[in-house]
Amino acid sequence: MFRGILKNIVDSCSGGVGAVLMGYDGIAIDQFVADDVDLDLNLVAIEYSNVTKEIRKAAEVLETGQLQEVSIKTEQFYVVIYALTDDYFVALTIDRNGSFGQGRYLLMREAGILREALS
Amino acid sequence: MFRGILKNIVDSCSGGVGAVLMGYDGIAIDQFVADDVDLDLNLVAIEYSNVTKEIRKAAEVLETGQLQEVSIKTEQFYVVIYALTDDYFVALTIDRNGSFGQGRYLLMREAGILREALS
Repeated sequence: MFRGILKNIVDSCSGGVGAVLMGYDGIAIDQFVADDVDLDLNLVAIEYSNVTKEIRKAAEVLETGQLQEVSIKTEQFYVVIYALTDDYFVALTIDRNGSFGQGRYLLMREAGILREALS
Repeated sequence: MFRGILKNIVDSCSGGVGAVLMGYDGIAIDQFVADDVDLDLNLVAIEYSNVTKEIRKAAEVLETGQLQEVSIKTEQFYVVIYALTDDYFVALTIDRNGSFGQGRYLLMREAGILREALS
């Protein structure tokens, strides 16, 4: 259902590792992980949902308007989180040698299709 | 002590609103807010520290290496968070009409000076 879209995002992104479509409640709807990658995307999903929940709360308290996008850079990965609806978001993990800019662009480009598929 | 560096970052960034140097424990060391801005940076600091704590926890659980940078885009603002030491980070708030790229660059450029001043 969503896996094809997620696979397309991961495959199109230089250094794309995995993508997960999930709810702010921490439950993943669908996911795709590149073959050669050892990553527990369920664990990733839960952790990201905690992060996004905290960021949404902050945006609410500070009255800075709705959360649209979060980018995280760690020693090994880039993670781009893109808000889709009030309940769902998509998160893309990219290797640090990959293209962060490509990942952001792809999520933005595919957001409409994902939103449509969710509704 | 740090205010001059923070002021320099905010003034140099197109759309720069405010910058705060703070601990992951939620206590701000120093801050600078542009004159015409109505923003409670203490509240901002507390909320950001909750966010960064959650992201650090996620990075730890997922073993993705240390957190280096977080960018948040809301309807009204960009927020760039840059890790300085194990205990401290700097957060820059930029108007959505401002330059996100400039902000990221300035934090990266001034990180060394801030780290030195912290030690």
